[in-house]
Parts: sequence; C-alpha cells; structure tokens
Amino acid sequence: MKIRPILSNAAAELMHDVEVMDERGRLKTIAIPAERPLTMYVDKRELVTLMTLGGAPEALTLGYLRNQRLVKSIEDIASVQVDWEVDAVAVTTRHGIADIEERTSKKVVTTGCGQGSVFGGLMDEVDSIVLSPDARLKQSVVCKIVDTIHTQQSTYKQTGSVHGCALFAADGELVYFIEDVGRHNAVDAIAGKMWLDAISGEDKIFYSTGRLTSEMVIKGGQMGIPFLLSRSGTTQMGHMVAERMGMSLLTRCSGKHFLLLTGKERLQFEPQLLGTIFQNVEMLGY
Amino acid sequence: MKIRPILSNAAAELMHDVEVMDERGRLKTIAIPAERPLTMYVDKRELVTLMTLGGAPEALTLGYLRNQRLVKSIEDIASVQVDWEVDAVAVTTRHGIADIEERTSKKVVTTGCGQGSVFGGLMDEVDSIVLSPDARLKQSVVCKIVDTIHTQQSTYKQTGSVHGCALFAADGELVYFIEDVGRHNAVDAIAGKMWLDAISGEDKIFYSTGRLTSEMVIKGGQMGIPFLLSRSGTTQMGHMVAERMGMSLLTRCSGKHFLLLTGKERLQFEPQLLGTIFQNVEMLGY
Repeated sequence: MKIRPILSNAAAELMHDVEVMDERGRLKTIAIPAERPLTMYVDKRELVTLMTLGGAPEALTLGYLRNQRLVKSIEDIASVQVDWEVDAVAVTTRHGIADIEERTSKKVVTTGCGQGSVFGGLMDEVDSIVLSPDARLKQSVVCKIVDTIHTQQSTYKQTGSVHGCALFAADGELVYFIEDVGRHNAVDAIAGKMWLDAISGEDKIFYSTGRLTSEMVIKGGQMGIPFLLSRSGTTQMGHMVAERMGMSLLTRCSGKHFLLLTGKERLQFEPQLLGTIFQNVEMLGY
Repeated sequence: MKIRPILSNAAAELMHDVEVMDERGRLKTIAIPAERPLTMYVDKRELVTLMTLGGAPEALTLGYLRNQRLVKSIEDIASVQVDWEVDAVAVTTRHGIADIEERTSKKVVTTGCGQGSVFGGLMDEVDSIVLSPDARLKQSVVCKIVDTIHTQQSTYKQTGSVHGCALFAADGELVYFIEDVGRHNAVDAIAGKMWLDAISGEDKIFYSTGRLTSEMVIKGGQMGIPFLLSRSGTTQMGHMVAERMGMSLLTRCSGKHFLLLTGKERLQFEPQLLGTIFQNVEMLGY
C-alpha cells in the first residue's frame, strides 16, 4: 500500500449564472463555467498558475506534477492543500524537487487547451515510452464508451465551455470523468487520480471531448494508456507520435462511427454490431 | 508611414493526408492539420517554442511579441525570419528587449488552446485598457459576419482540428481570417497582421470559433477591440473581464441567433431582420 499524501478537499462551485440577452432582446439567465487561477507553490516556491474550473484541484495539482515529470512517485508528496481564499495550492514534498529551477526554465507553448506550457524535454521521452503490446480494444467497448459519455451529466452539456476527459476500464466501465476549462487540466486531473488510486494505464481507454494534439497524445503515452478516443480530430504531430508509440488513436467517435488512425492491430472489429437499421441510417447520410 | 520589419514569407503546408479505417474496417484517406514546433529566438536568445499550423508564422511571431507586451512598437523590430528547415524563427530587434529575463520568468498556464502560457502581469493590465466608448454594432452586421464565416473555405471544415479567428470591419467586411491548431496562435497572428498593416481595433469585430476564456478576452482588449463574437461560449472570468472593460461579448453565434452577455448598450438591435420565416424555423426548434 502506497502512502497517500494528505489532501484538502476543496472542489469549488463549477457554475455561475449570468443574465444575457438573445437576438430578440429577451433577457435570459444562463449558466457559464467558473474559471479561476490556482497558483501552485511547491515547498513554498511558486511554480505556475493554472486557470481551472476548480472541480478537482488536488488531483489537478498532482497530475500536473506527474505529467511534467517534476515528481517521480506520489510517495514523494507529503501534502496538497488548496485554499481558494487565496487561489493557491501548497504542495509539500518529502525530499524536495532536484534541479527544479533548471527543469522548469524551458517553455514549450503547445497547442493544448489549458496547460499549454510544457516544460522542455517531453518529446525526448516519447521514444522511451513502452505501451503494453498485448492490449486490445473491442469495437463493442468503443460503442459502450461513446454511449456512456453521451449520457453523462456534465458541465459541458449545460454550458458548452469546458472540455471533458474520461478514463475507462478494458470492459468499457467508467473509472473517472473530469471536466475543466482546458483539455490539459482535465487530462492532468485524471493522471492525478490514477496516481492516488495506484491505477495502471496499461489496459485503459482514455476519452477526450477535445482534439488530440501532440501534447495530449504524449500525456496519454506517459500514463501508459494504449487507447485514445476523441469526439474530435487529431493533428499531424499527434498522429506521428501515436504511431511511434504504437498507440491506437480513434477520432470522430460519435454514435457507432469512428475513424481508426494508428495502432490498427489493437482494434478487434465486431461487424455484427453494425446491423441493418444502422446501415439504413448510414444510407440517409447520418 | 511606419517602417515595416523585413519578413520571410514561409507559410507552410497546412494539411497532411493519412490513411484511416472506419468502423466497418474500410480504408479511407483523410486530411489532418499540420502541427509543427516554431522556436522563437529574439536577438539570438531562445524565448519560447510555439506549436503551430504554420500558415502565418511571421504574423504569429509578431503578434506573440505584441500580445505578451514584450515589444511596444512594430518599429522596434528589424526582421522576422522563419526557417522551417530548423523549425525556428529569428527575430532581430533594433534596440533589444529590456528586462527580458525578468519579464518572461513568470508562468501563467491558462485555459487557452494554443499559447497557454502568458507571462505574468496580463491581468494587471485589464484596468488600464480603454475601449472606444462610442463603438456600436448593428445586428445586421452580426448576421453578415456569421454568414461570412459560414461560407469561408477553411482547414477547419476539412479537418475539424483547428481553430479559426477573424477580424471584421465595422460594416461586417472581412479583414483577416486565420486558422491555427490553437485559438491563441490564431488571435496572436491577427494581432501581428494588425500591427503590420497599422490597423486600429477601436471599431473592429473579432470572431473566434473557440471559447472566449479570460485570456482570449484580455487579448481582444489589448488590441482595443470592443466586440468579441464566438460560435462557442465563455467562462466566468472571461465574462468578468469583458464586463470590466466594457466590451461586448456575443456567444453562441449561429445563423441569426446569439447571446449578448456584456456591453449590452453597444448592440443596435434591428428587430425587422427577424422575419416570419425565421420565426417558423425557430418554432421547429432550430
């Protein structure tokens, strides 16, 4: 059993009502997502300010430190204390972070929503990532995942201004669902939760409402996850990195539809899933 | 007449074909957007690496320096030379950038797609921004803009994995249309083009396919633009900042529909635009 850090439990209010006017001048009240700064202090040293929805600030903090490769093991972290009075999170490590100055000095501003800034050297790590060669994904599990996301209650559905990420087990059962104002915060919060719960990514499936840019794909690889699904698309570099890691990328996941871009050998097609009714719908141009 | 910097003209290939497999195992070829690193050197000092589509790298570089408030006037820049052989852009200033070390040391990782990293102090500037108090926007111009975007040929429409931004004149004529893998790159490239062409934002309308998070709203304000339109939504902080600057935020712009969130006095409603046909469509739940 791993020693878990001491955590605050400071999930914040996710939504905020504002009065708007529509195109006919009619007043309405709509909900918009919160967006708040969270300044991270590691052993009293200011590291970064993240802009976040605030739903899972402790997991976000842990996942950020993990995905930036600033902390190797969760056991190195003694506590994570969020205080929204000052929009800050104080992280206490057991042994400090070696070379923190040097390791956080190089900026790569990426195409991600959210944590666009990745401290240098991530691309160097791509070649060291080994994904489980035997992991397979059934087509029926893809359908189950898309269906689960579709029925999930979410801030996204109410406000449309956040990104959602989810982690699924090999049988398509939902493990975590996280939303944030940026895709990268959501994926980092999932990385933080996996760390806390000592969950391996080797047979898991990662789903994102957002685009699979290179940084998202690299983060998925770092978490050891062989399957990345998105309702949206990918980029040339996301595609290249996924291919290099032998990861399966599935984009345009909607209904029973998807496009399989890389790692094609990992997908187990089940043609019987696509029956006559579906064919008819397809003929209608759905 | 301002002295323009000497620019390379290094727009790169925007799209890349890949072979994919659909849910029936059929092979297809689809186009995905490019995503490439562009490392910026200012007077031979490495500043940042941006991940970009590569369509307007010189304007992106200029707009980045402008929106980060690292360079005050375009006349301070002698040349911008992009070289895709080494994925780098060399910026030569006339007098150097004072305190560059200090000014680029503070990281705020924001919710933006794209250039998530904003060097500190942006929020401090919000209160110093003065938008033209007399700028007004006609409802018919909103409709014209949404229609123009709708008919625009774009990488987005082909690949769905980029964000588009556009600048419109007060009469709804398109001035610039820029796409990039991240929203922030697209807005920065527009800022760069405005700088090059000495175009003021005071009566302009800015359109984004992406969400209007706080950083997008602040960048719009820095460019002096009183009107921000989005097909998507905003966040609580985007809303708060827009209200504080007296900027008009219009979200959910689609067809003739929109929601006006802030700066309501700037919009000139034209009820006659919404005729009977439109009412019928609305009754059908459009």
